[in-house]
Amino acid sequence: MAQKRLGKQTVALENPPSIIATATIVGPKEGDGPLKDYFDLVLDDDLWGEDSWEKAEAKLQQEAVKLALNNANMVPSQAEYLFAGDLLNQIISSSYAARQLKIPFFGLYGACSTKTESLSLGAMSIDGGFADTVVCVTSSHFSTAERQYRFPLEHGNQRPPTAQWTVTGAGASVLSSSGNGPYITHLTTGKIIDPGIVNANNMGPAMAPAAADTIIQHFRDTGFKPENYDMIITGDLATLGKDIAEELVAKEGYDISKIFMDCGIEIFDGERQDTHAGGSGCGCSAVVFAGYLYKALKAGKLKRIMLISTGALLSPTIIQQGESIPGIAHAVTISNEK
Amino acid sequence: MAQKRLGKQTVALENPPSIIATATIVGPKEGDGPLKDYFDLVLDDDLWGEDSWEKAEAKLQQEAVKLALNNANMVPSQAEYLFAGDLLNQIISSSYAARQLKIPFFGLYGACSTKTESLSLGAMSIDGGFADTVVCVTSSHFSTAERQYRFPLEHGNQRPPTAQWTVTGAGASVLSSSGNGPYITHLTTGKIIDPGIVNANNMGPAMAPAAADTIIQHFRDTGFKPENYDMIITGDLATLGKDIAEELVAKEGYDISKIFMDCGIEIFDGERQDTHAGGSGCGCSAVVFAGYLYKALKAGKLKRIMLISTGALLSPTIIQQGESIPGIAHAVTISNEK
Repeated sequence: MAQKRLGKQTVALENPPSIIATATIVGPKEGDGPLKDYFDLVLDDDLWGEDSWEKAEAKLQQEAVKLALNNANMVPSQAEYLFAGDLLNQIISSSYAARQLKIPFFGLYGACSTKTESLSLGAMSIDGGFADTVVCVTSSHFSTAERQYRFPLEHGNQRPPTAQWTVTGAGASVLSSSGNGPYITHLTTGKIIDPGIVNANNMGPAMAPAAADTIIQHFRDTGFKPENYDMIITGDLATLGKDIAEELVAKEGYDISKIFMDCGIEIFDGERQDTHAGGSGCGCSAVVFAGYLYKALKAGKLKRIMLISTGALLSPTIIQQGESIPGIAHAVTISNEK
Repeated sequence: MAQKRLGKQTVALENPPSIIATATIVGPKEGDGPLKDYFDLVLDDDLWGEDSWEKAEAKLQQEAVKLALNNANMVPSQAEYLFAGDLLNQIISSSYAARQLKIPFFGLYGACSTKTESLSLGAMSIDGGFADTVVCVTSSHFSTAERQYRFPLEHGNQRPPTAQWTVTGAGASVLSSSGNGPYITHLTTGKIIDPGIVNANNMGPAMAPAAADTIIQHFRDTGFKPENYDMIITGDLATLGKDIAEELVAKEGYDISKIFMDCGIEIFDGERQDTHAGGSGCGCSAVVFAGYLYKALKAGKLKRIMLISTGALLSPTIIQQGESIPGIAHAVTISNEK
């Protein structure tokens, strides 16, 4: 068996990469939410001086990468790989950001799971001896996502209560072969689970079984228990999906209720900010991790967490053709100790 | 410096993974082309019993993976990772294939460069000690690509002479930590180069500078010369792009003219099959590699090649907003000797 392999879906890194810096840039709504103090930059408007939301989203990624490298006292030419993705068709936010940055580029797509997909592949590239410094970045943007996945905002469509609010923001993390943590120590890579949901406005429940499957598999592969973690936090299951995932994990004998959180729930004050079921998008777990969680780890308030970004791998075309929504979730253990 | 690093963009693998099996499934037009004898399965019609082209493309990927594993006397549950991508929005061909296959899944997007992106990340996952068996697969489909990127086929739009013909096909490769070759020995990961072309029907010239940049960087990083290769073959520069790339590489002092080919040119008989500038799509280099090139390597007709899949990272949305087309290209050295 491959020497770093633990069980069916998990690897334990031999020389865990250190996350030496992060950066977050968010939109005005996120900057008005409960985590506002943890973001590096809050925009006044979500166009950020560009003439389209898509160009603004590319700028979000590009500037988040530059800022994260700057926070590590580095420049883009010092990074060996950029692992990046977003929700837009042909991941243009990432490609157009990478065009400016000139870092060798691996484009990724895992819907909202792309954040931990990028951290997983970035960590492998360093632990495997292929790179010393890589940047992992993902973004989403409320207005580009609504235009592409649902309705143009100009239509003024009503949002059902199960709908989630796509986070406007980009979060970048700089991974290094040296540094004093926090470290990425374990990766549990998800397989697709499709519970048969066909409503593109009800994504939490579509992703919850995949999140539960990855969390359960992580415990089985590693022998860890919920008490080995200070926090287990999913990407964007939001209120409806989080309860389902917690119940599915409990059925297999793991009680995570005391330490289980969801980035989509934490980022907004749902009642006051009218965000229905919660936040979503691959900017959601990106900015909650690179902002709040990273700073809590650095400050020692958290010592060891599992981040599980969750993705709904639908496309509008295939949903129109009657298909259901496949879910996926990738878990990454981030710890202050190697 | 990371121990496997050679220069700015290249890594030399320490324990080069062996490509132990491949499989190719193509549409009727590809099965009528010059490489028809090298494909495992040629379809009679491009719907393959499905009720949409998109579902047919997902089936192409799914069956190519199963067939490649079967050719290695394996089943999907024995593969530790699936590295997959395609051209469709939200890479649905890959996601819906992965849903059936139940292999832990990394979704990739690099337009037509995704083939060598998948081989690069797949090879790293094995060389890094994270897996023993992985599958790398990409696909494209003429009818899904036309519907999404240009015009629905029902419109009967005229195709300009610079247009390329998207290949209908999927090519899968099984990479293993054991086996007797051919081996993936070097990876040169591309950065984005944008020559400023805005015509989505003229993609070869948009990608040629990126291909040339990666080939030149590969020579500089490794010290290899053109004579170290039996063949240097790009993904889908087609007739217009290939000449530009060859000239750009020659300007830096590397004469590759005697061994330079392009998968997009080889796959069709352009005159007879009316494919204009040549084939394209991430199925193009996938089936030319997994079909023709792999078999030529196994038979000893080729000993050492560089495969450079080339991607045009446009989206219809961003082109409508006046942006130009960023190009990218990733090179992989495949050799019968470690």
